[in-house]
Amino acid sequence: MMERPTAPNPQHRIVIVGAGFGGLEAVSNLRNVDAAITIIDQRNHHLFQPLLYQVATSTLATSEIAWPIRHLLHKYKNVKTLLGSVEGVDTAARTVLTADGEAIPYDTLVLATGARHAYFGHDDWEPFAPGLKTLEDATTIRRRILTAFEMAERDPDPARRAEYLTFVIIGGGPTGVEIAGTIADLARDTLKGDFRVIDPATARVVLIEGGSRVLAAFKEDMSSYAKAALETLGVTVHLGNPVTECHVDGVEFGGKSLRAKTIIWAAGVQASPAAKWLGAPADRAGRVVVNPDLTVPDHPEIFVIGDTATVGNGDKGMVPGIAPAAKQQGVHIAKTIKARLAGDQSSRPFVYHHAGDLATIGKRAAVTDFGWIKLKGYLAWWLWGLAHIYFLIGLRNRLAVALSWLWISVSGARSARLITQRDAAEAESE
Amino acid sequence: MMERPTAPNPQHRIVIVGAGFGGLEAVSNLRNVDAAITIIDQRNHHLFQPLLYQVATSTLATSEIAWPIRHLLHKYKNVKTLLGSVEGVDTAARTVLTADGEAIPYDTLVLATGARHAYFGHDDWEPFAPGLKTLEDATTIRRRILTAFEMAERDPDPARRAEYLTFVIIGGGPTGVEIAGTIADLARDTLKGDFRVIDPATARVVLIEGGSRVLAAFKEDMSSYAKAALETLGVTVHLGNPVTECHVDGVEFGGKSLRAKTIIWAAGVQASPAAKWLGAPADRAGRVVVNPDLTVPDHPEIFVIGDTATVGNGDKGMVPGIAPAAKQQGVHIAKTIKARLAGDQSSRPFVYHHAGDLATIGKRAAVTDFGWIKLKGYLAWWLWGLAHIYFLIGLRNRLAVALSWLWISVSGARSARLITQRDAAEAESE
Repeated sequence: MMERPTAPNPQHRIVIVGAGFGGLEAVSNLRNVDAAITIIDQRNHHLFQPLLYQVATSTLATSEIAWPIRHLLHKYKNVKTLLGSVEGVDTAARTVLTADGEAIPYDTLVLATGARHAYFGHDDWEPFAPGLKTLEDATTIRRRILTAFEMAERDPDPARRAEYLTFVIIGGGPTGVEIAGTIADLARDTLKGDFRVIDPATARVVLIEGGSRVLAAFKEDMSSYAKAALETLGVTVHLGNPVTECHVDGVEFGGKSLRAKTIIWAAGVQASPAAKWLGAPADRAGRVVVNPDLTVPDHPEIFVIGDTATVGNGDKGMVPGIAPAAKQQGVHIAKTIKARLAGDQSSRPFVYHHAGDLATIGKRAAVTDFGWIKLKGYLAWWLWGLAHIYFLIGLRNRLAVALSWLWISVSGARSARLITQRDAAEAESE
Repeated sequence: MMERPTAPNPQHRIVIVGAGFGGLEAVSNLRNVDAAITIIDQRNHHLFQPLLYQVATSTLATSEIAWPIRHLLHKYKNVKTLLGSVEGVDTAARTVLTADGEAIPYDTLVLATGARHAYFGHDDWEPFAPGLKTLEDATTIRRRILTAFEMAERDPDPARRAEYLTFVIIGGGPTGVEIAGTIADLARDTLKGDFRVIDPATARVVLIEGGSRVLAAFKEDMSSYAKAALETLGVTVHLGNPVTECHVDGVEFGGKSLRAKTIIWAAGVQASPAAKWLGAPADRAGRVVVNPDLTVPDHPEIFVIGDTATVGNGDKGMVPGIAPAAKQQGVHIAKTIKARLAGDQSSRPFVYHHAGDLATIGKRAAVTDFGWIKLKGYLAWWLWGLAHIYFLIGLRNRLAVALSWLWISVSGARSARLITQRDAAEAESE
């Protein structure tokens, strides 16, 4: 029998990259572990992405859906939070490389770096059709939507006015559906009576989905309900033809041209470059193809979770790229790491539990499907609201968001109708 | 006797440029007048500037102190709101010229275009010492303050760490005093326990005032109380030496160098270029020297109010450049315009009523001086808070701000600790 070393082992170092749903869940489930944990994120805040479209449509303020990471974790004395941008991993030396040239050593690495919106090889579309992944994306879209109404009010040319009053949303997933519904509400309800020349209610909101139905990941009757609910709000839904061109004057799809000054991209995502950092196999969207236990092939010390990873979901295809899946994966790998620290090196395959599907259509309708209960309409909207308030982090934000929604529900007024950031900066970045 | 024209007079056109305190007060006092009113602002929102420092220090969210102008005015059917940037006035043709090449005709013109921070001929200091006049200014300063703590946490070099933890505020007026006090609170209270390497309470907050006392416009005992209260919060107050240099590594004043990564400018303002547009006489700060009735010499049809104008205050020097003065001027010229429309062309000199002075020092102290009642300390803070909540526009914002302050008062947590906007854009602008 081998002799046990008498000196205590140096403390195990866990590095977690990304403080999204997956990373945050992992770290909070490791809070009592005897290990030195470092969590690195390029932003100082955790973002509640499922409600980001509400910032983009001026329903919620930025600070209502984002919280400083280090404050969320300040009670976990074994956790150190770093603001920094990771640019690579040296898997041989077991260090994470930051943009500032730091090399942070790890014994266990968790990559939970998420995804960005992607344009399927058409990155040149981005200036015309911004996507929605960060707070700045949301305030950019908010500025464009609100500015379009302002420009329409000022422009004497009826054709151009119509272009300013046309809003195109590309992509019929939950984000696209939710943005389209909320812009329709904004135009017909919130802005009512605010203009003297235009009638905001005449705004055209057009949702373009390349597939055969909206909310393709949901059950079929949910999709048809959502489409009908959008149409009730005045949204035009085009199915079956993907967008073939985006430019400064509008979009092209199905051989048709649609002139519009505001285009919003909700059609696709690309994983962060974690697969490249690791030299690991990846799928078409750049997601690392992980083992069933969420480790990287040949690297049992590296876990990849959330939108950065792809893993099978039994006989139901792949685990979906949604917040609950990332959170479950965070919990799962925390358990694995704890078991390993306790001496149990066995592989523990991840099993995904699908809690349900939710999406809102404007401020009065929603679809929710928890399997055991399926709802559509106003009651579903309330259920959706309660579920989201429940999952919001921090008492203050729950209260503030509940107050915002109640206020909008009663008065129709949206509090965060701000056109911010310099146009010059935007012009430069375009 | 002259024959009266039988055709009705065309409606009188009033153009108001700027929807700050003065412009907004003017328009709301003209809401029932038989005239076609156009209000133009380069921003879509009215900003409650007295609380802007609270956004800069992550106490309030942007949408808690800003409201869409057209929504504030949406019930006034004789008022049209335009988003646009004014670049000149053709006083002969009586038109306002916009950046888009529009010429908007007026019969009566009100210029209420405010002021920007100014560097007394040192515009090259701006990149190192941003000022505080817009929401973007506030989120820029917020980002710099929060980023400084993050960089200090990461930097292994003790000297650089000390530079990151040094915050210099230039200017000891109400804004400077309020920012200094709130940064001290932030460091010692809000951020407590959030960091692992640094102790945020060791941050140095330094207020530099070139004159002999802080709050120079207030009574002397208020100044000495404010200085003592700042020092109790740990703020170092330097009086009597103006800053002679700002650069990327810090400031110089009184022959001394102080190394600091975060510098905030609260030392001076420059009026908007209205005087140039009009070819009118101006003071050193660019303010139009208006007649006692707030009209421009030789142009009885043009009023200039608020921070863009300078006018005597009886034997008490000049009317101060503060929100209540701008509001009183807005009310005054609205009365004059109404009288004129009713046929009374007499000149009505403006008389300023000074309601009082208020300033907070951190979250527990303030000075308030209403003449009949003078308060210092905690009670003054509550009075200050009530006064500001009272003046906030819109029920929703009052509730939200009250909730934010109550939350900070109870928990110390600040909800809006967000580092936002692109670093790249900032780097470009520097």
